[in-house]
Amino acid sequence: MALTGLMSELIASTIEKIGPLDQLAMREARARQNRLTKPPGSLGRLEELSVQLAGIQGKSPPRSKDKAVIVMAGDHGVVAEKIGNWPQAVTTQMVANFLRGGAGINVIARQIGARVIVVDMGVAANLGQYAGLISRKVGYGTGNMAEGPAMTSLQAVEAVEAGIELVTREAGKGLDIVGTGDMGIGNTTASSAICAVMTGRLVAEVTGRGTGLTDEQLQHKIAVIERALAVNQPEAVQPMAVLSKVGGFEIAGLVGVMLGGAARRIPVVIDGFISGAAALIATALSPGLKDYLIAAHLSAEPGHRILLEHLQMEPLLSLNMRLGEGTGAALGIYLAETATRILAEMATFDEAGVSEEGR
Amino acid sequence: MALTGLMSELIASTIEKIGPLDQLAMREARARQNRLTKPPGSLGRLEELSVQLAGIQGKSPPRSKDKAVIVMAGDHGVVAEKIGNWPQAVTTQMVANFLRGGAGINVIARQIGARVIVVDMGVAANLGQYAGLISRKVGYGTGNMAEGPAMTSLQAVEAVEAGIELVTREAGKGLDIVGTGDMGIGNTTASSAICAVMTGRLVAEVTGRGTGLTDEQLQHKIAVIERALAVNQPEAVQPMAVLSKVGGFEIAGLVGVMLGGAARRIPVVIDGFISGAAALIATALSPGLKDYLIAAHLSAEPGHRILLEHLQMEPLLSLNMRLGEGTGAALGIYLAETATRILAEMATFDEAGVSEEGR
Repeated sequence: MALTGLMSELIASTIEKIGPLDQLAMREARARQNRLTKPPGSLGRLEELSVQLAGIQGKSPPRSKDKAVIVMAGDHGVVAEKIGNWPQAVTTQMVANFLRGGAGINVIARQIGARVIVVDMGVAANLGQYAGLISRKVGYGTGNMAEGPAMTSLQAVEAVEAGIELVTREAGKGLDIVGTGDMGIGNTTASSAICAVMTGRLVAEVTGRGTGLTDEQLQHKIAVIERALAVNQPEAVQPMAVLSKVGGFEIAGLVGVMLGGAARRIPVVIDGFISGAAALIATALSPGLKDYLIAAHLSAEPGHRILLEHLQMEPLLSLNMRLGEGTGAALGIYLAETATRILAEMATFDEAGVSEEGR
Repeated sequence: MALTGLMSELIASTIEKIGPLDQLAMREARARQNRLTKPPGSLGRLEELSVQLAGIQGKSPPRSKDKAVIVMAGDHGVVAEKIGNWPQAVTTQMVANFLRGGAGINVIARQIGARVIVVDMGVAANLGQYAGLISRKVGYGTGNMAEGPAMTSLQAVEAVEAGIELVTREAGKGLDIVGTGDMGIGNTTASSAICAVMTGRLVAEVTGRGTGLTDEQLQHKIAVIERALAVNQPEAVQPMAVLSKVGGFEIAGLVGVMLGGAARRIPVVIDGFISGAAALIATALSPGLKDYLIAAHLSAEPGHRILLEHLQMEPLLSLNMRLGEGTGAALGIYLAETATRILAEMATFDEAGVSEEGR
């Protein structure tokens, strides 16, 4: 544990609670899938997903009634290096948009019947006036990672703990499945840095155009990330240190959501590249966590495919989306609900009086 | 028109009604997408889909409130050649299952809020006792295509007309988007035959294991289809004749649903391989129809990829499903609804007070 970087009792005990999937529930789910009125395996990944969800929740059929997307927002000091086109104020403006229900994630969450939980993990502005916003602010934006660590080790711990506490609190209200979402101008830059370190790939391979960069701007972004890695020297064997050196407050919070969700046996549907970067850290802290994660979609950011391959996870959707906010995760939650409803509601051969001769 | 095979006034006039997409509505949709609070293009295929839907319906934002999946059932005389493992009686048993709400399509349709319309196009049994079933029975199963035509030219016309009339009637009740589904023991065999003729590919390339064949059974299925093509000599330039020679009553009905839907400017979401075979015929009858179709998913049947490439259509989902019934189409309808809701409900930069500086 000493090798992971600075830890805390809450983080360590949460990791300890993450056990293996429930094999009995998975056997039950598999057996029921094979009794449903369809050729065995003909619902493909929806069948596998139902079995995974049963194993996570420890019951077959699993539940998918109470759904939430946790959208964590944070700002990034590395914007001082001009790695993107959007002004930092957009983070705050989008938080306000989330709270008024006008953003992409609000629309999809309404459609799938999920609540949206908006969390200020470290926006670079005072957001005290926003009703409905959960404040777990660790700082007013991270430091510029091109010049030093993005945050202190203690801040990284505080942010991860905030995520654990938040998902635990939501579990108390009823939470069958949770999705992760993010907002933070500059956070593809931090995510590319994390991805390069944790996968061992070149920065150029895992860095994309974010919200829309030119070729020249992309080269600059790559150079800035390379500088951040040279300055901070993060190492994959110390995931908490990677998080503090080149991460972000919202990314650290999402690490906590993943750890806390898995510890409570709640399936965690991960969104795109930013959530994927958090998953790289979270699974490095707890390899068994991976079984609790569901990759919702393949983002248009090039690093996302690389990190999913590294995690050996196959996304459910590939719609060329790159918005973040948990929009992909919300669609993944919907497919997870399809999977649970298929298992719970479809008639068996016996019930329907359908011949099983062909099986 | 003489070259297409036998026609009818209803089919010809329906084809004539299929016009180009509404460019003005598409421009409006595109313009609104670019004013929504997200980086332009960041919702990927959902954005493109919203534009297509606007063009089809001729309004922006398009509607997605009234949804239906039309599941057409029919039997296939070619089962006499033992091309599959499931007894023909399963077609009837599954129709009963659809009507009781216990099948896969019922579960997903309930989840997405769509009505399921079950149609007897030609099941080889008397289904008069089933309440809720729409009977447009053209015959008691097709003839064995390995020995002669599956149906007469008149039967093919009758089945296509039934599909046109059905979707037109449903449109009268309110129908913003429709999905196609099928049930019919033996219908992957007919679909492979259609696919081979219409795409010009080898039978072996477009023939799969259906509900689960061994290698030896697959070779037999291929040989049977090759015999059907040798006996009937269908030619791609006569799509109606292809339909009557090696098609199926439910496949012909789905051709009608596609033509009739497009003529009423209703988006038609096509399911897997069987619906794809119907789309090959329908788009050969009316090339402009393609713009009205949305490919929901990539089926596990190998011919499906080939026919989608032939149609130059990219499926929205790839979940290794191969159940039919419209299950993939239902999920595609859901994503279409996501696309329309995004366009209708997301706030614009102006409304949300979000900076557009980075655009």
